[in-house]
Amino acid sequence: MSDHFIAPVAAHEPPYYAVVFTSVRTEGGNGYGETAERMEELVKDVPGYLGMDHAGTPGGLSVTVGYFRDEVAIKEWGAQVEHRAAQQRGRAEWYERYTLHVAKVERSHGFERERG
Amino acid sequence: MSDHFIAPVAAHEPPYYAVVFTSVRTEGGNGYGETAERMEELVKDVPGYLGMDHAGTPGGLSVTVGYFRDEVAIKEWGAQVEHRAAQQRGRAEWYERYTLHVAKVERSHGFERERG
Repeated sequence: MSDHFIAPVAAHEPPYYAVVFTSVRTEGGNGYGETAERMEELVKDVPGYLGMDHAGTPGGLSVTVGYFRDEVAIKEWGAQVEHRAAQQRGRAEWYERYTLHVAKVERSHGFERERG
Repeated sequence: MSDHFIAPVAAHEPPYYAVVFTSVRTEGGNGYGETAERMEELVKDVPGYLGMDHAGTPGGLSVTVGYFRDEVAIKEWGAQVEHRAAQQRGRAEWYERYTLHVAKVERSHGFERERG
């Protein structure tokens, strides 16, 4: 259990974009963890970045969803130099397979349990 | 490690929809697992259902992405009687908080490592 407060990214006012990245990793680390942490920090510098949700089933699928205000923000992140290098290493070393879906959010809502 | 082949849902021909459900659970099971399995089976009966990706970090966030051909399919699944009952139980018992994003996929692609 992580010691920080765990919460999914909140519903933003549509339209905005959800970039869904689903992946299965190769065996072994090869620096993946450090790079993933670095990317999580770097993406925060992109104007229009709204947040990221990530979950990984041990030994199974990883699902990461990045939220962006518009296409400009997605393109800026996709073209970021360190991120491009990480994408190349991902295909060369880290990923067995992945799928990327770029999707425009039309509606969203959130739920939070009331405290008794 | 699961003993079946693990693969993310493949990129379909756009447009299609990705329904992103991110959640944090309450403590305790209360029948959640059985219902989740039942829902995974039931949704397959919905015309236009394309597949589902799920990952859950132990003690952390769960991310589920359901893929549907169109809005009609999403609405049919949302209104399905057993699914509606499960949604109500989710808010009453299983979820601490969640966010739902309904998004139209504009582009997608996949990668698969070549076998040496």
